[in-house]
Amino acid sequence: MINKFCKTPLWEATMTLAATAEGRIPAETVIRDARLVNVCTGEIQEHTDVAIAQGRIALVGDGSHCIGPDTRVIEAEGQYIAPGFMDGHIHVESSMMGVGEYARAVIPHGTVGIYMDPHEICNVLGLEGVKCMAQDAARTPLKAMITTPSCVPAVPGFEDTGSAIGPEDVEGTMYWDSVVGLGEMMNFPGILNSDERTHKIVGATLRAGKIVTGHYSMPETGKGLNAYIASGTRCCHESTRAEDALAKMRLGMYAQLREGSAWHDLHQVAKAITEHKVDTRFACLVSDDAHPETLIQEGHLDHIMRRALQEGIDPVTAIQMVTINCAQCFQMDHELGSITPGKCADIVFLNNLEELKVTRVLIDGDVVAEDGKMTVPFKPYSYPAWAMDSVHVGGSITPESFRLNAPETGEGAPLADGSRVKVQVIEVGSGKVADIAGTALLTVSDGQVHSDVEQDVLKTAVFERHHETGKVGFGFCKGFGIRCGAMASTVAHDAHNLLVVGTNDADMALAANTLIESRGGMAVVQNGQVLGVVPLPIAGLMNDKPAEEMAAMVSRLTECWEQIGCTMVSPFMTMALIPLACLPELRLTDRGLVDCRTFQFTPLFVDGAENT
Amino acid sequence: MINKFCKTPLWEATMTLAATAEGRIPAETVIRDARLVNVCTGEIQEHTDVAIAQGRIALVGDGSHCIGPDTRVIEAEGQYIAPGFMDGHIHVESSMMGVGEYARAVIPHGTVGIYMDPHEICNVLGLEGVKCMAQDAARTPLKAMITTPSCVPAVPGFEDTGSAIGPEDVEGTMYWDSVVGLGEMMNFPGILNSDERTHKIVGATLRAGKIVTGHYSMPETGKGLNAYIASGTRCCHESTRAEDALAKMRLGMYAQLREGSAWHDLHQVAKAITEHKVDTRFACLVSDDAHPETLIQEGHLDHIMRRALQEGIDPVTAIQMVTINCAQCFQMDHELGSITPGKCADIVFLNNLEELKVTRVLIDGDVVAEDGKMTVPFKPYSYPAWAMDSVHVGGSITPESFRLNAPETGEGAPLADGSRVKVQVIEVGSGKVADIAGTALLTVSDGQVHSDVEQDVLKTAVFERHHETGKVGFGFCKGFGIRCGAMASTVAHDAHNLLVVGTNDADMALAANTLIESRGGMAVVQNGQVLGVVPLPIAGLMNDKPAEEMAAMVSRLTECWEQIGCTMVSPFMTMALIPLACLPELRLTDRGLVDCRTFQFTPLFVDGAENT
Repeated sequence: MINKFCKTPLWEATMTLAATAEGRIPAETVIRDARLVNVCTGEIQEHTDVAIAQGRIALVGDGSHCIGPDTRVIEAEGQYIAPGFMDGHIHVESSMMGVGEYARAVIPHGTVGIYMDPHEICNVLGLEGVKCMAQDAARTPLKAMITTPSCVPAVPGFEDTGSAIGPEDVEGTMYWDSVVGLGEMMNFPGILNSDERTHKIVGATLRAGKIVTGHYSMPETGKGLNAYIASGTRCCHESTRAEDALAKMRLGMYAQLREGSAWHDLHQVAKAITEHKVDTRFACLVSDDAHPETLIQEGHLDHIMRRALQEGIDPVTAIQMVTINCAQCFQMDHELGSITPGKCADIVFLNNLEELKVTRVLIDGDVVAEDGKMTVPFKPYSYPAWAMDSVHVGGSITPESFRLNAPETGEGAPLADGSRVKVQVIEVGSGKVADIAGTALLTVSDGQVHSDVEQDVLKTAVFERHHETGKVGFGFCKGFGIRCGAMASTVAHDAHNLLVVGTNDADMALAANTLIESRGGMAVVQNGQVLGVVPLPIAGLMNDKPAEEMAAMVSRLTECWEQIGCTMVSPFMTMALIPLACLPELRLTDRGLVDCRTFQFTPLFVDGAENT
Repeated sequence: MINKFCKTPLWEATMTLAATAEGRIPAETVIRDARLVNVCTGEIQEHTDVAIAQGRIALVGDGSHCIGPDTRVIEAEGQYIAPGFMDGHIHVESSMMGVGEYARAVIPHGTVGIYMDPHEICNVLGLEGVKCMAQDAARTPLKAMITTPSCVPAVPGFEDTGSAIGPEDVEGTMYWDSVVGLGEMMNFPGILNSDERTHKIVGATLRAGKIVTGHYSMPETGKGLNAYIASGTRCCHESTRAEDALAKMRLGMYAQLREGSAWHDLHQVAKAITEHKVDTRFACLVSDDAHPETLIQEGHLDHIMRRALQEGIDPVTAIQMVTINCAQCFQMDHELGSITPGKCADIVFLNNLEELKVTRVLIDGDVVAEDGKMTVPFKPYSYPAWAMDSVHVGGSITPESFRLNAPETGEGAPLADGSRVKVQVIEVGSGKVADIAGTALLTVSDGQVHSDVEQDVLKTAVFERHHETGKVGFGFCKGFGIRCGAMASTVAHDAHNLLVVGTNDADMALAANTLIESRGGMAVVQNGQVLGVVPLPIAGLMNDKPAEEMAAMVSRLTECWEQIGCTMVSPFMTMALIPLACLPELRLTDRGLVDCRTFQFTPLFVDGAENT
């Protein structure tokens, strides 16, 4: 694939590179006396120089003849140098930052390229939103390579999104400079069942010669996985068991071993490598989702590699997993992923191979970060006004909006107060993707059904927030453990409607209105007071504040959650998955409760009339 | 890169493949109970089935649910299966056969794909000749992927060829379905010296997103090799020392370890792998040139892998070197080079991993060879008349055409008979690419200079044979050891003019005229009698006879060489390199003697007047 992410296309640079390597013209930059992590041969090469011109590597070896009076010489002094790190699967929106601020956070950790699937913003703002993210990225040195969202909406017919993407839309994006492939094909049932529309989306990507990225989350490595891979998907980050990752590599699929902020898969999936003597060229490391606190406190791919080392993966292999293996996955290894002649001069300095502390980062030959900080400014970028104004709920929200009438009796009469009704309940677990479909008995009062704090069964509502349709779906969830108040979020996968969970209708209405006011975000409310809010005005998903500020805001909000009784780790992440109707077992969208085992709407009240 | 070499494009097959893998529709073919050589992970997987539909692999694993009443079941009975073998660098013309017959010879040995550089025919017939080879190939199952010849003529200004190819021509071919890249860029001086035309040829390839194949024959791994690789060349088959191959791999270049009919490099270059603990993903095995006898008696890549095993390379690594590594080199690994879902069903059956005897070959899901024989017919193909009529020498050739007058004295008078003149001599060695520039003293008689059999110094002439210009260059060579007669060839790299070497002018004229009569080929003559001739009427380079016949003809000609006193192995190969002015040290073209150390014409007579 042609690389559009470089300072100079190779075909415009070759004459200069040859002259530089030969010493006829001096290099722009020479790195002197480094320990090269050679990801091609898996060796460390001592005392290695690298000469750079036009953003590309002209020579690796003895570069003394490449130094002229104006050459910038960087003395490595025996530090290690490795190719810049690349994340093969990431949703930038999970960081709650625009790509620019995200870049500022990850580049100092050695990240030079990301393969980003902007499907969150795409659900809200469509491809125009994706274009905004591309523009936000373009002002930074980060190579933000886009995989066009494949599943917008995630589960057609079961939810209302701000936008919908079809095969023709996907095909159109394949000719964008910023697009290198298709975003995670989450609709694996559509693939396995030979659904024509789903296959057309994949086909448009293959026909353009680009890469189809995958999402196969089933613990099944037989006919389903084969069908999925045979349909052209090239990589998958969804393995949670070592045997699944190993099966994928054996079937020629790049196993993207994930260590995200919320999903800590590496402890298990690393065993695919450490407990089997296999060629590791099909193994990568990815983050999938990284929250601002993780980026600030732990780092990005450097952190994930350190985790890999803890799991017994050797450092050179770990570095291959975020460099050449990733580049080969995307067939961009002729441009990226190794410190070899002709490639983009994306180079990371490391203090040693145990701590993997990044001390300096070059992108396209320029030093862009040192000692954990960016050293180059970005041009300012502002998201357009329409992208900052995406929360459009139909009508005003009041406590009355949350009224949930008890079902009628078989004879059509209202249920008497004090009678008990059985409801379906979404049982959430900390750090788990899968929710469980349970039930609970609730007592009717005032003709309504309310949250029951004692049972930890909380009323939950999803308001359509894109087109002012006024649609709202009701359900109950269990597992957050809050004793009072309410919380709300416009980060609510993947349609990102307005999600509210609470103990009482007044606080729920306040939480919702707080987010309407802030044009999106996350809020915690207690007894008529807003305890905390993280405004996310960009598509209701992101803010343009730096990572440090975002991390601090999220951290404060976590304290607010604790204040109302929730001790879950990253509760907003768990909450945000309540509407994701492609995950097991029971989910709630703005259209109602969905049984994700049968892909059918299902009534809230068991053995009773449906809520209307 | 989009793969144009398949039965069905993947995007048209995915719905069927998914349905086949899932068992909703039966597979066309199922291979049952094989030992899979998994080139992705480097493992052997026992008891593996492979299900096939639309020429592609639908499933690898347990395929019992894929078998329907009409499914062809192939019982592997514990045999090994490996991906079909691919040769990353080959000139089919060296086999002296058209691609069709070449395919018939190599497919039963497990070869399913070749990356062919048709620069021999291109020098004679231009791109129209290349198209003929593509058409010849298209009637066979062999995936004959073309790399457009980059250096036609090989050494511009020093020889006359039938055709010349410039950057615009190269660019035009990049949009041919059959073209996947650029043929070996032999003009490494042009690359190293930033010659604009040379870099434009490379640039046209890179801009089209295709692969530049290399030829860097210098034992130099510093600035020159860096300059060459930085200019975009991705692979090189010219290493003859292990350290050169290793240096290339370290610099991210695919080291194509060569074991051709004439060049036996593997004994040395295999040490790059066997004596160093390196990741071998950048190592391949190629043939470069294979003669018909080699193909018949030894095989193709199967033979080269057996040689690799003898050199201590393990069988799975060897198989990776002709499958996935080659596919990754050409960025076609999403389509070729592994037995994994979605890929072309190109599969080789092997009796075991020691002998690597190929017992069955599938291409695009069809059994095309069994037990060493093709099992499918090819449509007939005839090269067009103009391609079969390429020998056009200016005027008639007689013994007088070979008259070589002695130089005049300093005073302009003819040298007296019996006086001795010093001539430059091309000293050839058996199986060596490099010739040595020597000198010899020859005695003048009849005012002329003749061959001197006692010294083994033979008159040599190169007649321009493309455009009837009447140009002829004279020289002397040493090393063939013939005692009488003459030999001639229209295979004379790379311009493929009419080359004649002999002990006397009459036999030289007869040899030349024999080839004009046969429209090209190789001939041996003695005392006015034609001892043997191998007609090569296709561009003066190839014949459309099967490999067995060609091998027999070449074998008979070798006997004729022996009859006149030459005991060299493959003497015609050594002879054919006499005009190749890009190799060291002294060469002869139709324009005269070339000193290839200085790239200057050089006089035949030392310290005397030049022959005119």
